[in-house]
Amino acid sequence: MKKVNIAEKLKLFEEHWSPKIIGQLNGQEVKIAKVKGEFIWHDHADEDEMFLIIKGTLKLEFRDHTVTLEEGEMLIIPRGVEHKPIAMEEVHLLLFEPISTKHTGNIEHKLTKKYHDHI
Amino acid sequence: MKKVNIAEKLKLFEEHWSPKIIGQLNGQEVKIAKVKGEFIWHDHADEDEMFLIIKGTLKLEFRDHTVTLEEGEMLIIPRGVEHKPIAMEEVHLLLFEPISTKHTGNIEHKLTKKYHDHI
Repeated sequence: MKKVNIAEKLKLFEEHWSPKIIGQLNGQEVKIAKVKGEFIWHDHADEDEMFLIIKGTLKLEFRDHTVTLEEGEMLIIPRGVEHKPIAMEEVHLLLFEPISTKHTGNIEHKLTKKYHDHI
Repeated sequence: MKKVNIAEKLKLFEEHWSPKIIGQLNGQEVKIAKVKGEFIWHDHADEDEMFLIIKGTLKLEFRDHTVTLEEGEMLIIPRGVEHKPIAMEEVHLLLFEPISTKHTGNIEHKLTKKYHDHI
């Protein structure tokens, strides 16, 4: 049992769109990520996904509307809902999602990370 | 699907040791709480529990050591591990735990909240 300082963990990597696992509990993972630019449209058929913004402004596009998240704001995206994250400037975020969650759902893309790294 | 501003939610209540639910996903709940003073020794037999500090300093006593969490720090307490939270000054925190989690585990105490409120 070891405490985690999120700011310290964020200093350990620079790459975008590559979530790092900082905790596991009850079959879920806590991850942090740095993102910048446009990601791809995808969904997670069996997993709800939570985004919590640590720094910056994240736009989440859905097929019929867009949600803009600022620092200290969170959104839970229900399973099966297609979404596309966009960050005009670098965004730091915390993710909660089941261990089974695939990075880009069932889509294979050059941005897809097969294995999430523990950090 | 509605975004949640955590600071705004924290303005909606004052009571201590009474977690409020701000999100649900994958059988888990996201809660916020304000705490001050000493809580009671308890554990959760079947649930791991995560504390993330939003404001203040939280001491978590375990039977053989103590962990002090500052703002931006988190700790996952594995199921079955007895703990006692202590906040010398008011602490704001975010909790992540299964829906089944009871406030004080199997202990009944005047501080025990039977039902967590959505906010």
